[in-house]
Amino acid sequence: MVNMDILKDNVGKKAADLIKDGQIVGLGTGSTTHYFIRYLGERIKNEELNILGIPTSYQSLIKAREAGINTTTLDEYDIDIAVDGADEVNPTLDLIKGGGAAHTLEKLVDSSAKKFVVIVDESKVVEELGKFPVPLEIIPEALRVVKDTLVDLGGKPELRMGIQKDGPVITDNGNFILDTKFDKIRNPHKLEKELNIIPGVLENGIFAGLADKVIIGKMSAIEEIDREDIL
Amino acid sequence: MVNMDILKDNVGKKAADLIKDGQIVGLGTGSTTHYFIRYLGERIKNEELNILGIPTSYQSLIKAREAGINTTTLDEYDIDIAVDGADEVNPTLDLIKGGGAAHTLEKLVDSSAKKFVVIVDESKVVEELGKFPVPLEIIPEALRVVKDTLVDLGGKPELRMGIQKDGPVITDNGNFILDTKFDKIRNPHKLEKELNIIPGVLENGIFAGLADKVIIGKMSAIEEIDREDIL
Repeated sequence: MVNMDILKDNVGKKAADLIKDGQIVGLGTGSTTHYFIRYLGERIKNEELNILGIPTSYQSLIKAREAGINTTTLDEYDIDIAVDGADEVNPTLDLIKGGGAAHTLEKLVDSSAKKFVVIVDESKVVEELGKFPVPLEIIPEALRVVKDTLVDLGGKPELRMGIQKDGPVITDNGNFILDTKFDKIRNPHKLEKELNIIPGVLENGIFAGLADKVIIGKMSAIEEIDREDIL
Repeated sequence: MVNMDILKDNVGKKAADLIKDGQIVGLGTGSTTHYFIRYLGERIKNEELNILGIPTSYQSLIKAREAGINTTTLDEYDIDIAVDGADEVNPTLDLIKGGGAAHTLEKLVDSSAKKFVVIVDESKVVEELGKFPVPLEIIPEALRVVKDTLVDLGGKPELRMGIQKDGPVITDNGNFILDTKFDKIRNPHKLEKELNIIPGVLENGIFAGLADKVIIGKMSAIEEIDREDIL
């Protein structure tokens, strides 16, 4: 494994060790979360745990199946703990997510969980959010007007393109992603609300004030930050 | 331009020259069709033509807008002529399509057109279909059972993965693509029907007996084959 993969592996395992028998677990999307899902599957098998997963994407559903985790839905169960990755984390544990185009369902699952744990390698830790563009999931019909509105708000929106011969990336919900660069994000709480009230926007990738715990994989050690610690 | 792009450019232009003022035109998806769309846009502008396009994907809709072609829908208009690419063409003008994950709407548009013209570079011409796997658009819930059925039929299905961190490609309709390799496709008409009756399959990428004309870009010249010629 290259270095970054070792860090992701470390935090994935750390998070899997937090899960208790009988819990309903939100399963995030992305490369770091895959390690968590794999280790959770191993624990379920080895310790004969009674655990159900609630996936945040087709991707995490497929990974859960591969790992031997039975899945259910938010319609049927409340979530005890959700574990998810992030593209950026700031010192007050606000996040940018959506590199995997799954942030709409991720926000639903992560915000529904009694406890939301974020796992990242140290490259995702920033002083101020915004180097990573904010992904917005929009309905395809809204492309032009939402782009115009985002430019008025000081953003530089770009339609995310896929591997499919120049076609746009389609989300699990059949929508488009606008990756939107802002010069500075001074107030993530405010921007998160401003973006979501634009008609045609389903959800944006700012997760302000949601994370209860962040586990950071560093070359030197694993750092854990709880929301209580920063208040 | 590299050689293949020159061939695509040539056939795209040739097809654009077939379009007549007042026609409703089906706009295919893929890299070859982009040249057609661009040249058609130029003709509309230069000759002040009154033409409407009916796109087969978000991708071709976006390309049509860039080219200045006004678009409409199959709900409102019949199609006079559709121009589309292909991943494979055999001597009886049967096709495999779907490399762009748009074959469901392409088949609807292409089969609705009074005339369906295929444009390809010579690398797409084969003696027998089947080197290119047959893409099937399936509803996500049907993944496991459709895969099993395809294996029973002698196929080797693989879920098409996207650029999104190991997640599956999602089509414009919110579905999955199963790329399915068959050893030999002796009877494309028969296989096309067999695949489409599998519950959970929306559409497969075999287009048997549909093309009225194929324009092939070769290094030496442009070859045109009409269905009448091969009867």
